[in-house]
Amino acid sequence: MSSWLQMPAMAPCAQSRELAFERQQQLTKPLGSLGRLEQLAIDFAGFQKNPVPQLKHVVIRVFAADHGVVAEDISAFPQAVTAQMIYNFVSGGAAITVLAKQHGADFGVINLGTVEPLSESLNGIPRLVNIPIAAGTENFCQMPAMTHQQMEKALEAGRDSCIDQPIDCFVGGEMGIGNTTSAAAIFCALLGTSVDDIVGRGTGIDDAGLQRKRNAVQCGLDLHFSSDNSPEEILRCLGGFEIAALVGAYIGHAQRGIPSLIDGYITTAAALLACRICPSVSDWLLFSHCSAESAHALVLNSMNAKPLVNLDMRLGEGSGAGVAISLIQSSLLLHSQMATFAEAGVSES
Amino acid sequence: MSSWLQMPAMAPCAQSRELAFERQQQLTKPLGSLGRLEQLAIDFAGFQKNPVPQLKHVVIRVFAADHGVVAEDISAFPQAVTAQMIYNFVSGGAAITVLAKQHGADFGVINLGTVEPLSESLNGIPRLVNIPIAAGTENFCQMPAMTHQQMEKALEAGRDSCIDQPIDCFVGGEMGIGNTTSAAAIFCALLGTSVDDIVGRGTGIDDAGLQRKRNAVQCGLDLHFSSDNSPEEILRCLGGFEIAALVGAYIGHAQRGIPSLIDGYITTAAALLACRICPSVSDWLLFSHCSAESAHALVLNSMNAKPLVNLDMRLGEGSGAGVAISLIQSSLLLHSQMATFAEAGVSES
Repeated sequence: MSSWLQMPAMAPCAQSRELAFERQQQLTKPLGSLGRLEQLAIDFAGFQKNPVPQLKHVVIRVFAADHGVVAEDISAFPQAVTAQMIYNFVSGGAAITVLAKQHGADFGVINLGTVEPLSESLNGIPRLVNIPIAAGTENFCQMPAMTHQQMEKALEAGRDSCIDQPIDCFVGGEMGIGNTTSAAAIFCALLGTSVDDIVGRGTGIDDAGLQRKRNAVQCGLDLHFSSDNSPEEILRCLGGFEIAALVGAYIGHAQRGIPSLIDGYITTAAALLACRICPSVSDWLLFSHCSAESAHALVLNSMNAKPLVNLDMRLGEGSGAGVAISLIQSSLLLHSQMATFAEAGVSES
Repeated sequence: MSSWLQMPAMAPCAQSRELAFERQQQLTKPLGSLGRLEQLAIDFAGFQKNPVPQLKHVVIRVFAADHGVVAEDISAFPQAVTAQMIYNFVSGGAAITVLAKQHGADFGVINLGTVEPLSESLNGIPRLVNIPIAAGTENFCQMPAMTHQQMEKALEAGRDSCIDQPIDCFVGGEMGIGNTTSAAAIFCALLGTSVDDIVGRGTGIDDAGLQRKRNAVQCGLDLHFSSDNSPEEILRCLGGFEIAALVGAYIGHAQRGIPSLIDGYITTAAALLACRICPSVSDWLLFSHCSAESAHALVLNSMNAKPLVNLDMRLGEGSGAGVAISLIQSSLLLHSQMATFAEAGVSES
């Protein structure tokens, strides 16, 4: 496995965190009364090595790829939707693109391999990077989803997805019909939880489909899982190109000192893999929302991750994180713009 | 009691709600996958009689007043802070003013009566309406907090706080040292819950202060409460000028077809009173957050109110609602800007 994956993340700046904490105690409000917004400001102070951090550059990258396990008939949507949604991202009609525009974020989509090849008319479109690794992964019920070389390419595509630009907060999104099946298999392998506890309805499959999905996950685990599997091997056998890219992005950004705001079920599978591969990455992850997809709450709990919102969303694409960006913005604006007791001439308690 | 208080609220437009629901089914996402953001868009369609509603005009009004019950030594902060914070609102250093600026909201503060009179230097400042009713309410441990005439003035000040301007969403905030004590007494009287279950630490009082606060609430209930009290009489005896103004605002706006986004503990007391006085107001109330102030969750639950966020905030001023504005904005932008399956050429499930 590539040595870069295990290189430790940067350490957040303890002194800036301390100064930010002290500032919070001086702002015109009862101690602690901004709750989690106070902690977010302190976290970003550590990330930016700046006691008064700012959120100027939010970068959103959606990674798209198809999944061989769709052959097991485990999704409510046809596989063609992965490529169709790439067009929707490029033309601005998808949920995450609307949210990116709302927050003035830098948005892009990276195609890592769809079954339906993208039209050549998309070549050169600025918001799209078209670097297909293969026409989707293999069916993990029959063989490993990826070769070592394919996984390496996907990891590097994530790591390099937005280099050479300023980033205060990275949001990774995903699109890939069948990828809740892949994420569920990863959770079962990493957490040792049962298939029944972890597999949910994804985009909305019916009861018979849910049973097929459970069977597919169990089949993948039976074929590939052993207790001494490395997280990289779990990713290779059960993951997807877009999940591998997210793992590479979370690790690479943490190594460069950039925080990532995690979205929902799929991205949490990538975040969990990233933390297992390179534990210090966890200092750089923020969790945006609790998905309505079955078992996301259970998984977040196992990671001691407390998401910012719970709005019963289960769309993916990065949309839960896209909604939560404004809460981070509120936190940092309050931290920087509120008056202190001394500045405002307000009596303390 | 004034007859205007009982006039029914407008009825939200059922047809626009239905059309908005149908639009949600056609947008490029799995059915229901935007969770509570879908319901918000449908609600605003009903409010605006428009299947594709917009959030352009957010109006925030903070009502400030002092409380006679502070004589019972029930607050962690000195009473002078109420007036001092009015200066902080006017100069933009308070939490709610930072959030108003973030969201481009129309902000104003209305002084209904502080113990420390405001400086004449504030006269004519655009963001401040200075209409003191008295130098704070009376101590409800000794007599009713307000006279009938005072309550009427406060109710009308709220009702008329932002007439003659377009409003897509109204946010009421409050400032008044001692007002969690008043709100707790109102909750106990309206809900029949015990003082111990309802009274919390407000801005952060210590154990001895908490006991004094519980005693004060119990004293107020013993003096004024009987089971046949009208909600108006509970407001008059146990409330504050700013709470009465919020009641008037919520009722008046619902009668004019304007939704209100409720903040935390104090504003929920006003919302509960408004619904008891004029039940159809409840169609026009949205609940923004669950406060960390003890018992807010219990009260919200009793009202079947499901707040949008839970960030352990307990600051008041309208700050929890201020944070949640962006979620409404996200909801309405997603509803209006996302492509339909037909528009995007994406296959349905």
